[in-house]
Amino acid sequence: MYTTQGLTPGNAAIRELPIGLFDSGVGGMTVLRAMRGILPNESFLYLGDTARSPYGPKSVETVQGYTLQAAEELLKRGIKMLVIACNTATAAALDRVRREFPQIETVGVIEPGAEAACRATHTGRIAVIATHGTIRGRAYEEAILKRMPDAELFPIPCPLFVAMAEDGLVEGPLATGIAARYLDPVFRIPREQGLETPDTLVLACTHFPLLQSAIADVAGQGVTLVDSATNTARVVKKILREKHLDRGSGPSAGVAFCPGSTRFLTTDDPERFKRLGEQFLGMTLAPCTVELAKL
Amino acid sequence: MYTTQGLTPGNAAIRELPIGLFDSGVGGMTVLRAMRGILPNESFLYLGDTARSPYGPKSVETVQGYTLQAAEELLKRGIKMLVIACNTATAAALDRVRREFPQIETVGVIEPGAEAACRATHTGRIAVIATHGTIRGRAYEEAILKRMPDAELFPIPCPLFVAMAEDGLVEGPLATGIAARYLDPVFRIPREQGLETPDTLVLACTHFPLLQSAIADVAGQGVTLVDSATNTARVVKKILREKHLDRGSGPSAGVAFCPGSTRFLTTDDPERFKRLGEQFLGMTLAPCTVELAKL
Repeated sequence: MYTTQGLTPGNAAIRELPIGLFDSGVGGMTVLRAMRGILPNESFLYLGDTARSPYGPKSVETVQGYTLQAAEELLKRGIKMLVIACNTATAAALDRVRREFPQIETVGVIEPGAEAACRATHTGRIAVIATHGTIRGRAYEEAILKRMPDAELFPIPCPLFVAMAEDGLVEGPLATGIAARYLDPVFRIPREQGLETPDTLVLACTHFPLLQSAIADVAGQGVTLVDSATNTARVVKKILREKHLDRGSGPSAGVAFCPGSTRFLTTDDPERFKRLGEQFLGMTLAPCTVELAKL
Repeated sequence: MYTTQGLTPGNAAIRELPIGLFDSGVGGMTVLRAMRGILPNESFLYLGDTARSPYGPKSVETVQGYTLQAAEELLKRGIKMLVIACNTATAAALDRVRREFPQIETVGVIEPGAEAACRATHTGRIAVIATHGTIRGRAYEEAILKRMPDAELFPIPCPLFVAMAEDGLVEGPLATGIAARYLDPVFRIPREQGLETPDTLVLACTHFPLLQSAIADVAGQGVTLVDSATNTARVVKKILREKHLDRGSGPSAGVAFCPGSTRFLTTDDPERFKRLGEQFLGMTLAPCTVELAKL
């Protein structure tokens, strides 16, 4: 029913469909934000599974189940491409989603982030900061090592960063204090001992761009921060063009999705989703754009 | 099938059943810990819904649904009493659980905490610290005002405390710094201005006893901390005695549950549950005591 098979370059109806984004909650909005920036003619349908977030501490099997449900929901509603805008879900479930839904082009946030990290590093020493779940899953490490087998990786779980981003504790001495608690053992302390430290740091959680400035301060000068959001948006743009799925700047054939329009599905309280989402997206959301969805 | 109706004081088989505890995750283990302390002859069956935790940010309807599923699971396995060892679930779902499962005595953590706060205060000024969800639900406020209509309440959401407890950030300058961020507007700042401040502070989240020392430091001398866990355990003890459900210290009739034995059900990764649980319970758990349950 919900298929894009038989798609041809001339299939205008499919080009008019929104790009689907999925995250466990609101963190994926940093990816949405980056995509809205470089794809101004596209429309977006974002699903945040807030009733079951966060995925970080959950098992691979559980996260796979949730992600497949979300992908199915977005496909049912009609999308032309799927972005798993969640590191935990990408690590656990990208391959499964591609297998179960071969009719749709699906992109995760890990490959683009890993690619950007390999481009950015000069020394091959790369730190990866993420939730416990993403770190345990080792998907970032594997994606980097596939491209750069000699890379020396420094995985650092930073579980408090998610709650800090959501609570607005993103700068000042407490934010940098907590960042130092996680990062000093890999950056400041070895540096003071004259040891080599990573020259690149991957923000491998969609929440972390909100803490970017505190993280950069603590990591120190000379460390390049790589943020998956921007790099994922670039990959999506490339694929849309290659597959002739990109939407022109002409008038829209559909009515539901004007260029640049974004609609949201949440599995829990739309009011709270709207409030938190605005913080992540940096813009006001009209209440009518947020709809409750049951998975 | 799973009923304790028709129970008589002589019904030894039911007395031998464990007490069921339910929490969204591992936080309820602070309640379990208190219960094990004052009910050494009882056995316990603890269910942590880690696949869907935390409940704090979720809507009342969602939390009610999850709690009813958990209660049903525990009743199916056989318990003689049910403790909702989770503030969010108690606030959202205690009444519904009592209505849907009238055959079992069910206790939440809010009434015992509210009662203890009213006993502790001299001035009637009571601060309540909790997750956003518990604060929004106003259940603690209502329970206190029912007993003490003149009480002046100071509800303070402290969303980071849960992640801090789980991450082991429970003392030192960062822990007190974050505690001060939440508590200073109600304690230190008005005190410095010569204004009255609360004399009692309720830890209205099961995670918060782990941060007790940092919280006490920041609230200042002369503030009594009330912890629901201990008070809930006392209420359970009283009910067991009144209903002739308490287990003597004689030999056990059953084999599954020896006196003092505790078994755990988790809806996600048992290994992680065990690791985190040990931190909260202050003891080592045998892997065989933790079982995966699907709700």
